[in-house]
Amino acid sequence: VRNTVDEFSVEEKRGLYRAIYERRDVRSQFLRDPLPAPVLGRILDAAHHAPSVGFMQPWDFIVIEDATVRAAVHANFTDANRSAAALYTGPRREIYDSLKLQGILDAPVNLCVTCDPERSCGHRLGRQTDPATVLYSAACAVQNLWLAARAESVGVGWVSILDLEALKSLLGIPAGHTVTAYLCLGFVSEFRPKPDLEEHGWERRQPLPSLLHFDGWGRHDDSRAASLFPAATAVSAE
Amino acid sequence: VRNTVDEFSVEEKRGLYRAIYERRDVRSQFLRDPLPAPVLGRILDAAHHAPSVGFMQPWDFIVIEDATVRAAVHANFTDANRSAAALYTGPRREIYDSLKLQGILDAPVNLCVTCDPERSCGHRLGRQTDPATVLYSAACAVQNLWLAARAESVGVGWVSILDLEALKSLLGIPAGHTVTAYLCLGFVSEFRPKPDLEEHGWERRQPLPSLLHFDGWGRHDDSRAASLFPAATAVSAE
Repeated sequence: VRNTVDEFSVEEKRGLYRAIYERRDVRSQFLRDPLPAPVLGRILDAAHHAPSVGFMQPWDFIVIEDATVRAAVHANFTDANRSAAALYTGPRREIYDSLKLQGILDAPVNLCVTCDPERSCGHRLGRQTDPATVLYSAACAVQNLWLAARAESVGVGWVSILDLEALKSLLGIPAGHTVTAYLCLGFVSEFRPKPDLEEHGWERRQPLPSLLHFDGWGRHDDSRAASLFPAATAVSAE
Repeated sequence: VRNTVDEFSVEEKRGLYRAIYERRDVRSQFLRDPLPAPVLGRILDAAHHAPSVGFMQPWDFIVIEDATVRAAVHANFTDANRSAAALYTGPRREIYDSLKLQGILDAPVNLCVTCDPERSCGHRLGRQTDPATVLYSAACAVQNLWLAARAESVGVGWVSILDLEALKSLLGIPAGHTVTAYLCLGFVSEFRPKPDLEEHGWERRQPLPSLLHFDGWGRHDDSRAASLFPAATAVSAE
């Protein structure tokens, strides 16, 4: 078979890997500068080109700039976070309280990504065996937009501490749809070298070989895992 | 605030967008060539650098090359697809039967991505309000690896038509874990210009403006949507 693949240049390949390794969940570094419409457009179009089961495209995007709406979402977060914080005590509670977990009011644009599990597009192809694949498609759209945002020097923060039913009511989202993600978008002063939760000692990145199995669960293989990660060709030093 | 963002070069940016627009769900174009271990390693490391709620890293990866295991997975698909096909009649059934929906035996590597909703990493940060965020994290890992694969000229196909309980039993996946995705990976003869399901007339890409809402559900705004997509700056002609 003749190979007609249009290969990536070294610099194009570096661009893809830079987006993956330099993407951050931004909460503290948002600048007030407005997002130019075409930049937001490119980020949304990247999301829309995510894979979806049966080509179903189950997503919708609510672009939120209105100050009143954002204030209401922020109040929702504050209530939800009070309950969430109550789970922790002692030193871990101290770390938790020191973490900034959202930039709802700081970022110039908020974006709610929703998913319609009953969308007729795709005629149910591929989702009879696992209805959750529809939700995964919408999550892939979020990841596409997150990486495109990094390439555009735009930070994204995923706010997961929200009362989703109250959020749906606030935004008028129909009952059958689910909220996949509530995101804050804006230019940033910097992208931190490591995830916030790693920097603050909340959690560490796990060693990848411990998560690799070969031909069946629990079949770890140190030498095989080592062959996958020759230090010399590592893309990321991390 | 001093802006210390390391911006992407034009070519790096193009690399990220090329991966997003040229990524395909590959079923028919796999070559038999083995995947070099460092290429597979880079793809897996990209997945491991996906975002995860609370930095939970809920994923595991089962690399499958064994012919017997793959034959059993293929038999699982064949059974599941017989049931799935029964949903369609008439011309749509004819299209369905003409679609190749997997490359389990053609691709040199299969990869099962799983998710552990109870992993202790992350200490439950951010997932009290929506436990599904754990599943979304694993889906983001799949999207990262899919894009990295495109940059490496490697095709990926997501096989969603499988009896997942039988698959878990076959691979020995513990009861509490979920299968996020079963993927086929390999070099390809080409990446098709459009998704298979679009090429075969199964479904069309929806116009993105119809999926955009402003400050609340159902608040469409044609002129605002138009400002997001000035033709002159479009990254993709599609």
